[in-house]
Amino acid sequence: MHNAFRLLALSLACFAAACSGSRSALPAGSGTQPRVVSAGSEARVHLAAELHRLGLEEGRSYEMLKSLLREAPGRLSGSPMAEKAVDWAQRTMQSIGLVNIRRQPCMVPVWERGEVERLELIEGEKRSQLPILALGGSIGTPAGGLDGELIVVRSFDELRTLGRKHCEGKIVLFNRPMPRALRSTFVAYSQTVPQRVSGAAEAAKLGAKAVVVRSMTTLVDDLPHTGVMRYQDGVPKIPAVAIATRAAAQLAARIKKGEKLRLHLELNCRSLPDRRSYNVIGEIAGSKHPEQIVLVGGHLDSWDICEGAHDDGAGVVHALEACRLILAAGLRPKCTIRCVLFMNEENGLRGAHAYDREHVGDKHLAAIESDRGGYSPLGFTTSLRGPALDWAQNLAAALRAYDMGAMIQGGGGADISPLKKRGVPVFGLATISHRYFDMHHSRRDKLEAVNPRELALGAVAVAYLAQVLSEEAGRR
Amino acid sequence: MHNAFRLLALSLACFAAACSGSRSALPAGSGTQPRVVSAGSEARVHLAAELHRLGLEEGRSYEMLKSLLREAPGRLSGSPMAEKAVDWAQRTMQSIGLVNIRRQPCMVPVWERGEVERLELIEGEKRSQLPILALGGSIGTPAGGLDGELIVVRSFDELRTLGRKHCEGKIVLFNRPMPRALRSTFVAYSQTVPQRVSGAAEAAKLGAKAVVVRSMTTLVDDLPHTGVMRYQDGVPKIPAVAIATRAAAQLAARIKKGEKLRLHLELNCRSLPDRRSYNVIGEIAGSKHPEQIVLVGGHLDSWDICEGAHDDGAGVVHALEACRLILAAGLRPKCTIRCVLFMNEENGLRGAHAYDREHVGDKHLAAIESDRGGYSPLGFTTSLRGPALDWAQNLAAALRAYDMGAMIQGGGGADISPLKKRGVPVFGLATISHRYFDMHHSRRDKLEAVNPRELALGAVAVAYLAQVLSEEAGRR
Repeated sequence: MHNAFRLLALSLACFAAACSGSRSALPAGSGTQPRVVSAGSEARVHLAAELHRLGLEEGRSYEMLKSLLREAPGRLSGSPMAEKAVDWAQRTMQSIGLVNIRRQPCMVPVWERGEVERLELIEGEKRSQLPILALGGSIGTPAGGLDGELIVVRSFDELRTLGRKHCEGKIVLFNRPMPRALRSTFVAYSQTVPQRVSGAAEAAKLGAKAVVVRSMTTLVDDLPHTGVMRYQDGVPKIPAVAIATRAAAQLAARIKKGEKLRLHLELNCRSLPDRRSYNVIGEIAGSKHPEQIVLVGGHLDSWDICEGAHDDGAGVVHALEACRLILAAGLRPKCTIRCVLFMNEENGLRGAHAYDREHVGDKHLAAIESDRGGYSPLGFTTSLRGPALDWAQNLAAALRAYDMGAMIQGGGGADISPLKKRGVPVFGLATISHRYFDMHHSRRDKLEAVNPRELALGAVAVAYLAQVLSEEAGRR
Repeated sequence: MHNAFRLLALSLACFAAACSGSRSALPAGSGTQPRVVSAGSEARVHLAAELHRLGLEEGRSYEMLKSLLREAPGRLSGSPMAEKAVDWAQRTMQSIGLVNIRRQPCMVPVWERGEVERLELIEGEKRSQLPILALGGSIGTPAGGLDGELIVVRSFDELRTLGRKHCEGKIVLFNRPMPRALRSTFVAYSQTVPQRVSGAAEAAKLGAKAVVVRSMTTLVDDLPHTGVMRYQDGVPKIPAVAIATRAAAQLAARIKKGEKLRLHLELNCRSLPDRRSYNVIGEIAGSKHPEQIVLVGGHLDSWDICEGAHDDGAGVVHALEACRLILAAGLRPKCTIRCVLFMNEENGLRGAHAYDREHVGDKHLAAIESDRGGYSPLGFTTSLRGPALDWAQNLAAALRAYDMGAMIQGGGGADISPLKKRGVPVFGLATISHRYFDMHHSRRDKLEAVNPRELALGAVAVAYLAQVLSEEAGRR
């Protein structure tokens, strides 16, 4: 029945040519020229077609996502919901038929939003509420809140040019919009997110008393988007919130006209001592080289204010459903496919580091992560370069018939970045990202923003890549 | 400032090689081998970049769509809303700065849904309402409705095998689902939509008294999707409705178990005499060859039960915004770019035929239609084949940097199909279609289903193709 797939084991002759690197059996950016078309292409065409059919006709990704979101929405690390997500993951791995299911402990930060979250524009007797969310990791304000005059900057350079004289005692609004005219919204995000992550520290160095950061989205609307921020050692900690883009633009326009604006900020968010949490791990045991591993993963935690449907419920489901599809297709991967659902991607990467630390001796052929939402897959990003990238493009070519065969130089994702540092080839599921930052870290990240077909196709792409990579086991 | 664009006029040397056909200056499926990389590629890269920047940073497509949907939702041909859409289109063309703006009359069918639209499952005293929509063009039932036993088929072959003996006096449910495991949901639609269009006539030939058609969507849910149906001359007219997919599946499952089910159907939809309506046409006059035309278009009408946001508000806006972007970029197209907003695509194509009839003498270089929604553009389908297709792929190559450079053999769309029959090369904007049939012809087709970035990119793609095609004017 699945003879076509067995051909895979006999075919992928391009591997040896492209192979290099020490810890992994896969190429790590150098090597000799691979063949332009791999010998395994026919078998791969069959594999892609069968996984595509199974994923769309008998897929379970959407119902899996619905179940996760119902049981554990808002699963921020250290919260009771995150622990429910751990239980859910363990049960779901069992129901799929994975083996060696286990929890991998890690200590995670605990940050709570609290009950009070208020930014007000003070105009005489009038106080207007502005749409905000505290940033994850922020301290609260003193009881009763704090007041300050608003100043606006677009960059750290502009902030430093203003200097302590203009920043001291002020509330700083970082109002740099995500650039719209980039093909990838992720690139736009990476260009602007430093103001969210480091804005508080940079402003505090100049004596500011709080920061307000324009939300990370290309939309101009009234929905704030949260995310992590970090303090710096030796720099005073000041409160930090995200404000919806429309309000940010309006405040900035008034300041530009020469108005003086005064704000009142009140937060009682807080950090508590670290708690124990877990990555959840399960496997399809390799049939020939069980000691060699292709990792597929996503992150279990999400922000507290949303269901965490795209970020990263979709990635969790992609990893689980990829394993289920491989089993449902009757495939017997040569190496172990290890599904790792990481804890604490959003505000610490503690799960990623625990995994890396404890599996330092394992032979990872490759690691695949899905953390760009459940939108239409385009293909993958990869750490491979040069001839090894050509080889990977060959590997993905059978996905082109489904418009998801791209293999683009890039990273794999945050949770597998420690493996990447060790030289393991990493792959990240790339998606059509136009809608991603509309919902990212906001209340809009819920089930209804996910399309069942688009979600299912992500799992198909991950299953395909995991399977063809697993056929590389034992090839050196 | 726009020197890069002027290079276009000097460059596209591949055209002459690829040129053939009589009425159009563009190739129509044959010709000699074109160059692999066109001479104009650098200028085109600049053109694509500038249009992409303008469309995303200063685009007006989303606000234009919002304005159309606010003024004229549910603009079925012959309805007051359709006439409001005509007014809107004319005003919008004026505001953009198009010239030669005019209304082109055409007589359109007038079908009204009426006030009563009810399908009930009768079980003793109990009557359960089933989620339906009358199909466009259907007759109503006799006053008081009609009752009948339900039979279920999946195809016309199955219906004919049952024969008159089993169909006479029955209500026929056509329950063939749209196949899920196809890359393109449009292909899945084309494989199943005949049951909606011709089901009533085929069932009536065997004596059925009404038909119920499974809605055209890959989702299993409770939302019915309407669409056009057609009677055949000499065959009795019987009422026809679409039922939501979940209800269709449930009814079919009960019949399969051997249950006998009885339904009550009541509709007072009706057709009235044809009324005058209009295509709306406006132009950017060609700077060197105004008599040669590149048409860009979409259709103004929509189904009555929805806002018609994706179908085809998006296409209307793509055509208008493409013209606006060309003007905003300071381009001077060599030939005339004619924006045609067609009336009556949904239930008759009367506007398309009126346009074709009255412009039979015009020299159309090409026609571009957008009628696949405001989702992420993939590129274009085209009627061109062989070397001419290679040439068109070259033309679109500069869009690949934005993941929308596909040029796939196919049609251009319903409204420009009469031009295609005359040998005019046609192009259809191709989109990522996974979500398309979730909303198609249902109440879900509203503004909130449209993403501003995705919509804007469709206009960018249309503007780019219209401009590079216009540079071909006068080349023979």
